[in-house]
Order: sequence, then structure tokens, then C-alpha cells
Amino acid sequence: METVRFLLEQPLFGGVGDAAMRVILQLMRPQEFAAGEVIFREGEDGDSLFVICSGTVEVLKACPTAADPLGKLIAVLSVGDVFGEMELIDMQRRSASIRAFAPVRLLALDNGGLFQIHESDLPTFTLIVMNLARELSRRLRRIDELAAGAPAVVAPVSAD
Amino acid sequence: METVRFLLEQPLFGGVGDAAMRVILQLMRPQEFAAGEVIFREGEDGDSLFVICSGTVEVLKACPTAADPLGKLIAVLSVGDVFGEMELIDMQRRSASIRAFAPVRLLALDNGGLFQIHESDLPTFTLIVMNLARELSRRLRRIDELAAGAPAVVAPVSAD
Repeated sequence: METVRFLLEQPLFGGVGDAAMRVILQLMRPQEFAAGEVIFREGEDGDSLFVICSGTVEVLKACPTAADPLGKLIAVLSVGDVFGEMELIDMQRRSASIRAFAPVRLLALDNGGLFQIHESDLPTFTLIVMNLARELSRRLRRIDELAAGAPAVVAPVSAD
Repeated sequence: METVRFLLEQPLFGGVGDAAMRVILQLMRPQEFAAGEVIFREGEDGDSLFVICSGTVEVLKACPTAADPLGKLIAVLSVGDVFGEMELIDMQRRSASIRAFAPVRLLALDNGGLFQIHESDLPTFTLIVMNLARELSRRLRRIDELAAGAPAVVAPVSAD
């Protein structure tokens, strides 16, 4: 019940009902990582998204000038944050590496689980996809804001 | 029928059936703009997405150093491209200005139309939202790729 309440408070599950959330929790897989462990690497195949239940992770992106072998640190994520969702949506490879910064507990939802939600409860599936799209849109806006203030780095790719 | 076929070929409507597409077309509003006309301005309220049927538009973002009063040119969009979809998803204000570069014909789908699809045909609504999310994800990936090669401009916002 604790976990159901926690998940219902996260933007990813905004609007999802209690009963549906309990079903989804059964489809999610708990995972734990020690500080410094790599959760996944940029370029790998991957079909799961992860919700952070406790701890923090680093998001790293390959970069020839970075001292860290996994690349440049581009974000730090903590409780309630979601990662890996882009691969679940667009079926491409991991766009960045994720490494536990502090010990971390996660709940993973894979493509099979998401498909089960699609088949058994389309309104809930639709809500989750809407929430994911809203989060992606929010990230794009923030990047666009920064890009507008910076010379030409993100210029030609904001839309096409 | 021409337009239905055209729309079915666009990524936004990938997977949508013929009959559903005909219904959606009835919900879309044709619009035309002459070269140089502003279609909408950054910061305005807006609840429509637009599909470009012919012509090209410029995407401009406010920037203190730009000579153009609408700001810096960040993208040029052409036939089949979609714009305005972020506002439909996240209900925030227009994140950039759009101006016709060449004479342009558009089809607009507003929030009311999207809601009608939601109410009458949830599977089709879900497909459209999935397609929108996939497109947003694809844009984020491309921006992330560029950001990894650039010093710190997009650093803290790629995810949270």
C-alpha cells in the first residue's frame, strides 16, 4: 500500500486510479543497485522504464573529452524521477548511461508490462502515455529555453 | 480522399485506420497563410496542432541578440511536419513563434477535436498520443546528441 500511494503521487501515474495502480505495481519489478553500479549503458537495447523509489542516479552521455569513461554528467535524478522511458516509447537504444550515485531502489516497468496494461485497461494505458508525452514536452521546452539563449548549439534540431 | 491519404502517410497518424482518419479530417480546420504572415507568436495561449499540407514555415524563438523581432530562427518545417503539438499535450503557452516562409496550407486540430477523438475512439486517440510522444522523444534524442558534443549548454536539463 505504501508503494501504491508513492506511485500515485508521481507525475507518470497522474490520474491513475487506486485499483489500476495496484495492478500496475504487480507488473513492476523491484531492483536495487549499490553506489557506483551501472544500471544501463548508452547504446544498449532496453525496453524498461524505471521509477526511483529511493537514492539518486547519474545520467551520463558519451563525450570524447570527458574524464569519466561513461561520459559527461548531464543530470542527477532522485526519488520520483523516471528514466528509460524514451526507449519504451520509441524502441531505440539507450540514449545515455545511468549509474547509481547513492544506493538506489527502483521499480522497473518493461514493454511486456506496458502491453498488458494496454490490453487490459486502455484508459489507464492512455493516461500513462499522455503523462509521458507531457514530461517529454516539458523537457523539450526547458532545452529550447536554454538553446535560445545560447549560440546555435541546438539550433537546427528543435523541430522538423 | 486525397487529404485522407496524405494524412495517413504522416507519422502523427501512423497506425490510424482509413475510417478513423476520415472522421478526424472532419474535425480538422483548413487554414492558409501568405508568405511572411505570423501563424502564432511565442507566449500566446494555443490549443491547436497544425499539419503542413503545402509550403514551409519558420520556427523562431525570442532571443535578445536576434535582428528579427520574432527572434532566432531555430527550424524550418515543411510538408508533413507538425507544429503546436507541445501546447496540445502540456497545456502551456506557445514555446516559439511560427511564420509562413512560403505560402502555406495547414490543417489544424484543436483540443476540442482531440477530445472528441478521445471520447469516440479511444484506440485511435491512444495511437495519436503514442505517435506524438515518439516524435518528442526523437527530438530529445537529437538535442541530447548535440548537447553531448557541446560544453555544458544543455547540461542540467536533459532529464530530472
